[in-house]
Amino acid sequence: MRLGNVDIPLETCQLVGNILGHIGDKWSVLIIVLLRERPMRYSELERQIESISKKMLTSTLRNLERDGFVSRALTPTIPPRVDYALTELGKEVMEPLDALARWALTNSARIVEARARYDRQQH
Amino acid sequence: MRLGNVDIPLETCQLVGNILGHIGDKWSVLIIVLLRERPMRYSELERQIESISKKMLTSTLRNLERDGFVSRALTPTIPPRVDYALTELGKEVMEPLDALARWALTNSARIVEARARYDRQQH
Repeated sequence: MRLGNVDIPLETCQLVGNILGHIGDKWSVLIIVLLRERPMRYSELERQIESISKKMLTSTLRNLERDGFVSRALTPTIPPRVDYALTELGKEVMEPLDALARWALTNSARIVEARARYDRQQH
Repeated sequence: MRLGNVDIPLETCQLVGNILGHIGDKWSVLIIVLLRERPMRYSELERQIESISKKMLTSTLRNLERDGFVSRALTPTIPPRVDYALTELGKEVMEPLDALARWALTNSARIVEARARYDRQQH
């Protein structure tokens, strides 16, 4: 399989696809974009992304932490305080992610249109 | 919510996240990268992406077609022949998608490492 001018083994392609799948996930993008502003506590993230469930927010943060994009700092106050922040890797991925997000934003009308056309054809 | 210097309503952000979620999906990336070479028949795609199930290939192609990235041409031979190709939109999205895929490829070792570190800490 080729990416640009480079030949890439299928296995690597699947890893890349898997990484993109995590980064490209709807909620991940929102969280990464929010954390770019500044570190945030769990409750702040929850408030900012109104439509997310606790279960989904927790599992998305866990995936982002596992992939090394987000760090989790526990301050043992009462009640304990948990801050999430972008890591160096998370800041670096912002650049290509931003370009893709801008593309999606610029072209979202074309995609919405394509979806409407497709859905009409199915009925 | 801000993306670069632009203020973006949460709703638009979710649409963008949803679009990225589709594009960024592991199988979608593989299919888009394969179709960049040339149009392919269903059976060719199936052969190239060894580990994909028929069900997953069909639903991924349907999503890509619905979003307007892939076209589906039916030739009514016996047996009927179905060709998939990148649309203009699909070709355009390759540019930012490629940049992100290259980033993921270049940095995949760091992500694999982060995952291993995380998994060790959980045990």
